[in-house]
Amino acid sequence: MAHRIQNSRVWEERLAQRNFVQEGVPASAFTSKPPEGVTVVSLSWGLPDPDLFPVERFAQASERVLRREGRQALQYGGSASVTHLAEWIAQRVARFGIQASSADVVVSNGSSQGMDLLARLLVDERDEVWVEAPSYFGALRIFASAGARLRAFPVDGEGLIVDAVREALQEAAAGKRPFPKLFYLMPNYHNPADCTLSRTRLEALAELAQTYGLLLLEDGAYGELCFSPEPLPALKALAPEQIFYMSAFSKTLAPGVRVGWLIGPSGVADRLRDQKVDGATSGLVQAIVAEVLRGMDFDAHVQQLRQRYQQRRDALVRGLKESLPPEATFVLPSGGFFVWLQLQEDTDVEANLPQALAAGVDFVPGSAFYLAPDRAAGAGRSSMRLCFSYSPIDKLEEGARRLGMLLSGFPRTTAL
Amino acid sequence: MAHRIQNSRVWEERLAQRNFVQEGVPASAFTSKPPEGVTVVSLSWGLPDPDLFPVERFAQASERVLRREGRQALQYGGSASVTHLAEWIAQRVARFGIQASSADVVVSNGSSQGMDLLARLLVDERDEVWVEAPSYFGALRIFASAGARLRAFPVDGEGLIVDAVREALQEAAAGKRPFPKLFYLMPNYHNPADCTLSRTRLEALAELAQTYGLLLLEDGAYGELCFSPEPLPALKALAPEQIFYMSAFSKTLAPGVRVGWLIGPSGVADRLRDQKVDGATSGLVQAIVAEVLRGMDFDAHVQQLRQRYQQRRDALVRGLKESLPPEATFVLPSGGFFVWLQLQEDTDVEANLPQALAAGVDFVPGSAFYLAPDRAAGAGRSSMRLCFSYSPIDKLEEGARRLGMLLSGFPRTTAL
Repeated sequence: MAHRIQNSRVWEERLAQRNFVQEGVPASAFTSKPPEGVTVVSLSWGLPDPDLFPVERFAQASERVLRREGRQALQYGGSASVTHLAEWIAQRVARFGIQASSADVVVSNGSSQGMDLLARLLVDERDEVWVEAPSYFGALRIFASAGARLRAFPVDGEGLIVDAVREALQEAAAGKRPFPKLFYLMPNYHNPADCTLSRTRLEALAELAQTYGLLLLEDGAYGELCFSPEPLPALKALAPEQIFYMSAFSKTLAPGVRVGWLIGPSGVADRLRDQKVDGATSGLVQAIVAEVLRGMDFDAHVQQLRQRYQQRRDALVRGLKESLPPEATFVLPSGGFFVWLQLQEDTDVEANLPQALAAGVDFVPGSAFYLAPDRAAGAGRSSMRLCFSYSPIDKLEEGARRLGMLLSGFPRTTAL
Repeated sequence: MAHRIQNSRVWEERLAQRNFVQEGVPASAFTSKPPEGVTVVSLSWGLPDPDLFPVERFAQASERVLRREGRQALQYGGSASVTHLAEWIAQRVARFGIQASSADVVVSNGSSQGMDLLARLLVDERDEVWVEAPSYFGALRIFASAGARLRAFPVDGEGLIVDAVREALQEAAAGKRPFPKLFYLMPNYHNPADCTLSRTRLEALAELAQTYGLLLLEDGAYGELCFSPEPLPALKALAPEQIFYMSAFSKTLAPGVRVGWLIGPSGVADRLRDQKVDGATSGLVQAIVAEVLRGMDFDAHVQQLRQRYQQRRDALVRGLKESLPPEATFVLPSGGFFVWLQLQEDTDVEANLPQALAAGVDFVPGSAFYLAPDRAAGAGRSSMRLCFSYSPIDKLEEGARRLGMLLSGFPRTTAL
């Protein structure tokens, strides 16, 4: 026995005993490489523009904070700035109609960890978690890895189709299907569909939540990045005790700080903190971010982000309108980072990614944003996510043209 | 129905459906407060001395790194410094006899997250995870929250009693008990017992691991803080393919950065990274830490830490020897942060914590480091963990005296 084991990789034997639930982005979407010598205009990764990071402010703030309170910021638990940050967040979310005290704010390592904390707190193996179709693949991955059974509900140009959710809740209330522990959604500037929930649907969903005692997780990742003068209210504003709201500084300051927040119904914050098994989010980073915020006009900063990203949206859309075949459609994004392109139903987008790379443009196939079973049935096959936040304006137009030319000639598969 | 739900706290209804496995530190150990006006010498929290944080280096490094590579360090994925940090770690662990490439190093949010990644990868509900008795309560909490069934094996002055583990493995191999997915232990400068595994036991345990295909998680948290001229080899050095090794910068640079690492058997690193659902450890913090390390003589720094902490150990031990009743015993720590005090068997340490606080000294009751069932049966009842890393030298002696006087008069309960 000794001999056998010594020559085997034990951890692989152990893993072989496990049954991992796989959800989230399929490798192909991000691992495909262009041919030698081809420079690709990237429309795939949803990265913020690093030119918009307040780098100099971070440099000054980090030095100041370390000189002033380094011994505390570097210790377990961090310094008073950790509290100031929570207070700042509590005040900021008031813009979206959310009433919270700093004690209600659970600071996390990006909003991803916020989702994980909630999954740890609420979700048992085989519990149902409901999501949108399409949905952010990072969320699908987190809830799937928590052992949840995921069910997806379609979105259209006005966001989640609430009637479909109402029907399902009625069935659940009648005992005809399991009641979900949680519904994860992104009401505004959706990733990837970049649709926004209409006011009518927002109110209908809030009422459903209260009527059925449905708990929702609202992803406010792009909430600050509206192209309208005033930001839209959060769903949480309409049903505070039903909704967990999360967001992060990833799109407004810098993703590299990995600082997000989760704000739940009253009284739940400490239970969420109990789920934090990584010994808190870096007290140093929290102190630096708090200091950056103390020194800046955040409203003016966000206003600048909105203008820049709107210009990029316009550039991409201009290029698309010039060159897209008539059967390709999309909803004009009113915020966020993405354009969600719908092609003729029998187009197989993922199969054509290599061809796109060869033509010097990339994208994320729509299938990446659907649950594995739905994907297998063809969901998202003829859609793609185009990101306008990262590439420069002139490149965006060029990328759109390359894509448009290509789409006019995409090979078809048999209709689904 | 609507009415009922609207007036209830839905998340509490949901939580009521859940069955949380509770392990780890009991609240009393850290929430008890001293009476008004009493200044307490803290021997409880295991904090490093903030005077030993290289604060000025952090201030300079953070400013430099942000000015030089801020756009990358603040972006998703971070900058090249992230790779440099992994390379530095891979080189550093060679001191402990661990051979690793930077690709083998999984950087985590403190070693706590490393444990969580491993639990996510290996541990299913109701799997057995074996630990030491006593053991670090943070680890008990993480593995319990992963749904593991924990079994504890006793340590003595020479660390884990390996013969007890051999017997259990023989029973498991004979199908008389479940085989563990993992064994978590801290071979050197143990928290809380501050014992160190003897060379004989180290070799015996490595052989057991290979013979039975046992996977171990070695916690090297205090590995750099030895009071001997040369650091001890890691258990992983003796059985690389059986052992996951983790450590962090928390005790050598600063806990507030929350940067640790996990190094497993060959080929497992990517599987562990797959378990990271929080979008990576802050690229900014990794870049800052890499820059701090680039600019410093880490060996000289660690040498200074060893001297300072040894002086503190000596101060506490001096005070204890002067004032302890003869029946109180402890092993002289050869590294780390703690003294593990064993009192007469019928002493109820936790019940006497309020009395200690009134006398101006605190500690962590030994029971905090045992599994709930063992604790209920009285494990750790007559022991306490004393921390010498945090309080100043003169205070340590004073605290020890206060404790000694108190111990001489501790009320007894009926013998266990």
